[in-house]
Amino acid sequence: MARAIAASERVRGTTSPNPPVGCVVLDASGELVGEGATRPPGQAHAEVVALAQAGERARGGTAVVTLEPCHHHGRTPPCVDALLAAGVARVVHAAADPNPEAAGGAGALRAAGVAVESGLLAGEVERGPLRAWLHFARTGRPHVTWKYAATLDGRVAAADGTSRWISSEASRAEVHDLRAKVDAIVVGAGTVRVDDPGLTARGPAVTRQPLRVVVGAGDLPPRARVLDDAAETVHLRTHDPDAVLAELARRGVVDVLLEGGPTLAGAFTAARRVDRVLAYLAPKFLGDGAPALRDAGVSTITGAVGLVVEQVSMSGPDVRISAVPGP
Amino acid sequence: MARAIAASERVRGTTSPNPPVGCVVLDASGELVGEGATRPPGQAHAEVVALAQAGERARGGTAVVTLEPCHHHGRTPPCVDALLAAGVARVVHAAADPNPEAAGGAGALRAAGVAVESGLLAGEVERGPLRAWLHFARTGRPHVTWKYAATLDGRVAAADGTSRWISSEASRAEVHDLRAKVDAIVVGAGTVRVDDPGLTARGPAVTRQPLRVVVGAGDLPPRARVLDDAAETVHLRTHDPDAVLAELARRGVVDVLLEGGPTLAGAFTAARRVDRVLAYLAPKFLGDGAPALRDAGVSTITGAVGLVVEQVSMSGPDVRISAVPGP
Repeated sequence: MARAIAASERVRGTTSPNPPVGCVVLDASGELVGEGATRPPGQAHAEVVALAQAGERARGGTAVVTLEPCHHHGRTPPCVDALLAAGVARVVHAAADPNPEAAGGAGALRAAGVAVESGLLAGEVERGPLRAWLHFARTGRPHVTWKYAATLDGRVAAADGTSRWISSEASRAEVHDLRAKVDAIVVGAGTVRVDDPGLTARGPAVTRQPLRVVVGAGDLPPRARVLDDAAETVHLRTHDPDAVLAELARRGVVDVLLEGGPTLAGAFTAARRVDRVLAYLAPKFLGDGAPALRDAGVSTITGAVGLVVEQVSMSGPDVRISAVPGP
Repeated sequence: MARAIAASERVRGTTSPNPPVGCVVLDASGELVGEGATRPPGQAHAEVVALAQAGERARGGTAVVTLEPCHHHGRTPPCVDALLAAGVARVVHAAADPNPEAAGGAGALRAAGVAVESGLLAGEVERGPLRAWLHFARTGRPHVTWKYAATLDGRVAAADGTSRWISSEASRAEVHDLRAKVDAIVVGAGTVRVDDPGLTARGPAVTRQPLRVVVGAGDLPPRARVLDDAAETVHLRTHDPDAVLAELARRGVVDVLLEGGPTLAGAFTAARRVDRVLAYLAPKFLGDGAPALRDAGVSTITGAVGLVVEQVSMSGPDVRISAVPGP
């Protein structure tokens, strides 16, 4: 399963609105004979890729897959049919498919005499490569990760507006890797006017660019870097999180990285449309300058927006905190 | 040495201006025959306590001590003399004594034919129980730990001023334990007027109270809780960190916990008189309200006050970050 998860990680960002799934196929003796991950939309799912590689050696073998195989005709035929046609004796999957249309894969396989094991490393997959897609499948809304880099005292810029660089090179490299894995990056028009960010993913391993999304009523400077041809850009003339997310869902966006300034982050936080927070806290003090978050609709301590810390780690000299809404 | 360190931890807060030292004595066969820690000022040092417990069994044995034994007559005779009189064959110590008056203990022991090993677990002792005292010995200034509890977005109060409670019960209990180990707690007069904190250490293990220090020109409300008889309180009518620290040094204070609000913390930060930062970050967002730090004398990003993260851990649901000035 760890190998299937790794395969799925490699295709993150290329599969939406389909889930980034990984699959390995073992023959009857347990030898690895096939490995695959979801191809871009309209092309083969992970199981089909792995089974094609395995060929006849899949017969009597085991398919290990990060998501319950689908049981419906989308743009491609159901994976359950492919698994049955290949003659696998056993399917082990991590996450269950919450999509009522596609679900029932495990049941259909069992009914056809295939041994099915569910839930292996499900937590890891659900918090990892399938997190955004599962959220989308359950809510119909793209999953939003709000990423920010602040000083330990919560500032995202100094008094004079300078902010390059708050976080370390290591943290910025991590963010570029993350950008390459999401479907879209969202910022406010104000950030574009003030900071003129390129919003592309840069780095040796980057092979694709996410959609750049600028939200807000104001016009963009005609020479803004987000308007260059390094990646596609859309400008949505609204600040309303739900309107933004609905439009992005319509465009097949499942996984959103919100890199907006304090006010846009405040609007998403107030609307409870931040599904995960990724904070890079640099060990620095400013004591003045823009705060990480503004106007989140909270006026008293008991109204604070509650989170649960999922993971704390170091990113170079910075502290990286991943948190989700709760408790 | 781990046992000697544990013994020294138990007397933290009771020994200033002397260092909280721990000592264990092993007999010639390596059996533990004595254990001690620094008594209150004017009373026996750790070595003397441990040697008294060991009696004749110390002869030919080993003394393990967290600090190089002193070699000068203060209010008590030098520990080197006590070790020689007891006839120990070997002394193992962690930190070296930076105090020019007291130093030379290791050399004097060696000159008398005692085997001396220096530096065992020195790092642990220097960052741990002896940190404040070593800082004081080197600089002549009390060691200042600035402790604050903020939300993940760096707020120490909500828009309406409420702040109870930002951090979790677990974090607040940790702070009470910490208060019991320091010599003094410093806050601004503004905090006393607004929050009326008791500033005492509370908890099952608390046996002593640190000095309460209120700084700032303004008068205190006559019924302020810091004026109750739960602990001694001094009011220093200055905000100048160096003036405050000089007066505290004069009073024998070595280890200070700064629990001031954003402005007082800013003054200490700007003066580079914060020797350690202990931040309890609660996984909450406020998006408004007082920031953790104000007026630290920084106007642009390249002027940020740099820190190095020493340790990150969880305190209940909160993230606890310990950092020191640097790099």
